[in-house]
Parts: sequence; structure tokens; C-alpha cells
Amino acid sequence: MKFFNVKSVEETIQIINQHIHPIRETVVLPIDEALGFVLAEDVASGEAVPGFARSTVDGYAVKAKDTFGSSESLPGFLQVSGEIKMGEEARGILMDGEAMYIPTGGMLPAGSDAVVMIEHCENLDGLLNVYHQVAPGENVIRKGEDVQEGASLLVRGTRLRPQELGILAAVGITEITVYRKIRAGYISTGDEVVPYHTKQLAVGQVRDINQMTISSLIREKGGEVLFGGIVNDRYDDFLEKAQEMYGKVDFLVMSGGSSVGTLDFTTEVIGSLGKPGILIHGVSIKPGKPTIFAVADGKPVFGLPGHPASAMVIFKLFGELILQRLSGEKSSNFPNRIQARVSKNLPSDPGRSDYIRVRLESREGEWWANPVLGKSGLISTMVMSDGMLEISSEKEGVLEGEWVPVILFR
Amino acid sequence: MKFFNVKSVEETIQIINQHIHPIRETVVLPIDEALGFVLAEDVASGEAVPGFARSTVDGYAVKAKDTFGSSESLPGFLQVSGEIKMGEEARGILMDGEAMYIPTGGMLPAGSDAVVMIEHCENLDGLLNVYHQVAPGENVIRKGEDVQEGASLLVRGTRLRPQELGILAAVGITEITVYRKIRAGYISTGDEVVPYHTKQLAVGQVRDINQMTISSLIREKGGEVLFGGIVNDRYDDFLEKAQEMYGKVDFLVMSGGSSVGTLDFTTEVIGSLGKPGILIHGVSIKPGKPTIFAVADGKPVFGLPGHPASAMVIFKLFGELILQRLSGEKSSNFPNRIQARVSKNLPSDPGRSDYIRVRLESREGEWWANPVLGKSGLISTMVMSDGMLEISSEKEGVLEGEWVPVILFR
Repeated sequence: MKFFNVKSVEETIQIINQHIHPIRETVVLPIDEALGFVLAEDVASGEAVPGFARSTVDGYAVKAKDTFGSSESLPGFLQVSGEIKMGEEARGILMDGEAMYIPTGGMLPAGSDAVVMIEHCENLDGLLNVYHQVAPGENVIRKGEDVQEGASLLVRGTRLRPQELGILAAVGITEITVYRKIRAGYISTGDEVVPYHTKQLAVGQVRDINQMTISSLIREKGGEVLFGGIVNDRYDDFLEKAQEMYGKVDFLVMSGGSSVGTLDFTTEVIGSLGKPGILIHGVSIKPGKPTIFAVADGKPVFGLPGHPASAMVIFKLFGELILQRLSGEKSSNFPNRIQARVSKNLPSDPGRSDYIRVRLESREGEWWANPVLGKSGLISTMVMSDGMLEISSEKEGVLEGEWVPVILFR
Repeated sequence: MKFFNVKSVEETIQIINQHIHPIRETVVLPIDEALGFVLAEDVASGEAVPGFARSTVDGYAVKAKDTFGSSESLPGFLQVSGEIKMGEEARGILMDGEAMYIPTGGMLPAGSDAVVMIEHCENLDGLLNVYHQVAPGENVIRKGEDVQEGASLLVRGTRLRPQELGILAAVGITEITVYRKIRAGYISTGDEVVPYHTKQLAVGQVRDINQMTISSLIREKGGEVLFGGIVNDRYDDFLEKAQEMYGKVDFLVMSGGSSVGTLDFTTEVIGSLGKPGILIHGVSIKPGKPTIFAVADGKPVFGLPGHPASAMVIFKLFGELILQRLSGEKSSNFPNRIQARVSKNLPSDPGRSDYIRVRLESREGEWWANPVLGKSGLISTMVMSDGMLEISSEKEGVLEGEWVPVILFR
């Protein structure tokens, strides 16, 4: 099998990063429907959070200086001049030598700058015995300590997690502009491939596994999937379907075509969709060498190998990156890979990146990666695995006990 | 503040595991809607995958023994007796001394037991020159090598990932029985708490952040949320709302009530819902000590601290575990925690577990955890964080460079 533009894994990632740009079409959503979407605007806060100084404990609001020197053996004495109610404005001003009862979350009265914990004082008929000194600001969240008025809250390109929605709620922002979901098209190819709901296979046929696995991977990453069906190994049918789908989606994925003849016309179809055309024809990787990546008039087109497990490995590595680039999400430093120790020696050819399916096991707080055996095409090996360990192209293998990166299957 | 049944983190986990049992109510779903659901039945395969021996390469199907001794310098010679077509039954039987062309994925003809790669032979007008010997089974996936007929495919309690859906598709199973989604009820409490869509706060009020964060965490874990609103710090209102919600859901969560008075009646309300009642009243943890866990007639009831960040930390640690127990998912060995090296010394009180928010940074392939500063109540610290590192209760802190477990915020 001849590949005319074979790239390393690192080069493939670089080419994707260079050529794929965010879609940047936006929708406005209420924040309680925005979980997982990518923010399309910078957001600043119109107000301070909290909007007033709050106590973090149950106790007495005081002037810190009035407690200086107070201790168990030499308590200080303050006059209890009132009580703060939750959710209400603190009325009255705290004068020198005074204290006011305050519950957790209550608003500090004017004049006070600290709170003595209730465990550290004793109210004797309005005379507060203070057994512990406090510093200014102690047991207090200052006005604006969480969010300052006018401060940048969130930046464009942030994927919205529960806490980002929480901080928007905190400042009363109830609607935001996000990037719309990415629409990916998916086509299976192969004369032997039949719809997965086929009850009885004829001899020589296999059901379409890749439709299910690749569609699910796209949905897991927040994308929508348009399924174009299975096209047979006929050039005209394939070209027609590819062109039709290409017009409807942001990203076209197809799988199959690992035999020479099929691969040849898959290449021709992908190459004919637009400029600049095929950028990668073969990746020096195992499994998944027969991978094709093209850009046609700004849209990515991705040809996956036909073997179900290889197709998943390649999609995890590169397809998810393409989806992230299209989504407008700024590169995150969130690990989809962890470090684990490999449980046995594994050889590898230098010049090629190897991805070995593994089952993870926790041993005394360390993750160990146990290789799962079986040929690279078998979907059952994916079912048995928690992730795949990476042996990068410059290595000749890894040794038992060595720390290796493992890309997680969620 | 008095807690009458304080438990360690480890004890809390043990109590949850002991007292929470799966809901086990099922629904039948088509597999393309089942991503993320938990399988409610063991699934066996009615057929073998693949249903026939397949070639993994383009080449010639042969009897391996006919190639023994073949090499570049001393090729073997075989008669080309036919061609296998993709997706069709291989007709005819391969006789001694014969070879048939076969594409990747094609069905091996009867009589053959291996495939010679096309790169290792040459067809000269029907006479195949073979330059490489092959062993029996070489370049072949045997019938049933991926899945054997009658074999166990998936077991009850498996959360369905793309690959599990793929293997179901492979054997033609299009519908499966899964456990229904968990319905969680959520109530906010506090006189100072107002709905997050409140435009203008009165002095002393704060918006309801926890509704947004906790609901989102529940949804992320595949649960449904019923929001019961905000109840004020009045015992009767609170009791009535809690009883009403408790009847409608599988799991009741409430937050707020960190001041002594509020905590007292939150405790009373939670304790009154059913037997055995409150099992945990206080966890020796920072942040989040004022955590309450009860079981009322088999249903978990969970009282979170009021501070938004503390509520999230506690829900990540224990609420997600409760949801997983209810969901029927068998315990997974999938890491929601990774190992990372801490970037500075952190002290900790022994006897208490500490959870420190961190930002992760990749340095030469290792994850480093940089502590995020700020008081534990601040939601902004959660926004700045990728996860939280754990200092378990027996430790007095961690040293710069030490490997620590980090629980990831997705």
C-alpha cells in the first residue's frame, strides 16, 4: 500500500492546528442550558461579589483593635450593641468598645472590621467576654473579594463547567452568547458493510460498527452528527454522497477503504472536494496508518481506517482535536492523558508512534497500565480497555515499571 | 458549632457504600440513544464476530504450508485460481498449490489458512511468485476472534461508552435494557439567598449560586434535577418543602444553613424525613465540615454547606459517589483522580482531610499542581481551578515536588 504524504503524529497535530479554525457562529442561551458550550464573548462583572462584607463564621462583629491582647487568661470586654439578621442590611454603626452578634454569611455593620468566633467569647448579659484576639479582616469576606466590580469574569473560548455557570449566576448574568454545536457528517464505506440493524448477515458481510462508535465519540465531545449512510465501493456513488454531505456540515468524517483499490478512490474523492485538498495521506502510527486528512475550502475532511478499533484510536487522537479546534475552545490544560506505570516490557519500532490499549489498575495510589492483548482491529479490545498508552516515535519501546502517558477512554 | 456525629472522609465513603443501593428501575432504549446509560442486563452474543475468517491485508489467500521456505532469493510458485470480492461469500475451495487474490476485510476461501501480503509476492500472468513465507493464521482474523458465539459481551452495571455501543452494533443488538436516570431534588436555603435571575440585589442579599453549580454537577453525572426553590430560614416552610420534594425524587440534596441556628433546624428537618435518619453530622474535612448525610426509608438525603465552593467540593467527593451508587454502575477503575506533583509546601492538620484547589500545569510530561489561593467560600477559586489535591487525614502536609492525588473538575 502506497501513502504519498506520510506524517508523524506530531506533524499531524501541527497540521491540524495550522489549518483548522473555529466556526464562531453563535447562539444566545440561558445559563441553565449552557453547560458544556464554549463561551463566545468575554464577560465582565457589573457588580461586586459579595456586594457587602460578610462574616464567614457565627460570632460577634468587632473592631479588631478592641480585641488586641485578649486571651483566655486575660479576656477583653465589649458592649453587645445589637444583632445582625441574615439577608438584611446591617443598621447602625459599631462604635469603639462595641460588638454585634452576627451569623455566618451575615453583613458586617459599618465600623466593624473583623469577627470573633462564637467559640472564643461569652455573652454575659450584654457584656461580651472576648478570649481571643482577631486581626483586621479575620473571619470576613470583604466586599468584592470573590469578584470585583468591572473585573473580567470569563474569557471567550472558555468551556462552561458548573463553576463557570455558578459565577455567572453570582453576578446575575442569566443569558450568554456561546458558539453553536459543531455539525459533523459521517459516512461509512465498504461493500461488505451493512447497517448495524441488519438482523441476518449474509456470508462475507459485517455490520457497521464505526457508525455507532464514531458518532458516539462526536456526541461525547458536544458535536451533532449527520449520518450519510453506507456507500458501496463505487467511485461515483461515493463522490456524490461526499459532495452532498460536505455541503451540509462543518466537518466530514468517513471510514473504511483500507484495501488498496478502495483507499485509492477514497483518496481521490477526498482530494476532489476542494482546496488545498489532501494534506496527510498516511500517519506513521500503529494502529491507524491509512489515515487521510484534507482541508477543502476551509472544511476539514477526515478519512479513518476501516478497522473499528483503529478508527476509534485515530478519532480519539486527531478527530477530537479537530472538533476542539472547530468549537472555538481555547486550548485547555486539562488532562485527557494521565501518567501510569506500564506493567510489562513493550517493544516498538522507532519512527512510528504506538498506541497500546490498556486496562488501568490502582496499586498503592499509583496507576498501572496493563496491556490488553488482541489484534488492532478488534472492537472487543476497546471494550476491555480504559485507555491507550503512547510510545512516541523516537522510542524503541518501554520497560516494565516505566512511567508512560495514557490517553483515557471516557 | 457542635457536630454530633463527625466522620472522616474514609468513614463517610464507607457509610455511603453501605447504605446506598441501586434504584434498578429500567427502560429499554435503542442503542443510539443509550450513550452514558448503565446496562441493566448481562448481554451475550448470539453470533460470532467476525462471522467468517477475514484477511487483515491486501494479498493472496494461501495454504501456509505451500509458502514454507519461500524467500526473496528462492521464491515459491503458486497458481492463481481466483479472486475474492468484498462482501461476498468466497466460492470455490483453495487446493494445494493455489492462491486467490483477497482484499483487506475479504473472506478467506475454504482450504486457505493464511494470507501473503501483496508486497511480498508478484503475479506473473497467473503464476504467483511468493517471496515470503507465512505461518498458519498470519494476516487473518479468525471467525469469532473478536467475539465468540454465545460469549458474554457486557455485564450488568457497565456504563455504556462508544465502544460498548459498537460491540452491540457488531452483533446486531439494537435495543438494550438500561437503568433509568436518577432523579435528584435540590433545595437552597437561607434568608439571604435570592433567585439567581434577581436583577437588583437588596443590601445583605446574595444570588443562589449553588442551585446552578449543584444542578450542573448532577446533570454532568447523568442525573435529572428537580429544583425545589429557595426556602427561608423558617422551620415549618423548610419541613414542608423537604417532605414534598422527598416524595418525588430518588435523592434529596439541599444546601445552606451553615450558621448555628439554621444548621440546627436543617438537621432537625433532615432527621425527621425517615429511618434510620442522620448517619453523618459533620465531616472532618476542609472545606465542608458542616455536611449532613442521612438515609430516610432507603433514600439518601444530603445537606451541603452553604458556601458555593465548599458545596461543590463536598458534592464532587460524596454526591457523585451517591449518584453512582444509585445508578447501578459497577465500581469503575476509571480515574477521576490523577497523580501530580505539588508546586509548593502545604501544611495540613492531621486528623482532617484537606482539599486544595489547584491549577494543573504540564512540565516535561509531568503534571504539576499549583495551589489556587483564596478563601474556601469563593466561587472564583473554583473557576480558576482544574481540580483539587487531596491531603489525607493522616498527613501533616505535603512537600514541594511530592506526588499527590488530584481530583479533576471536568
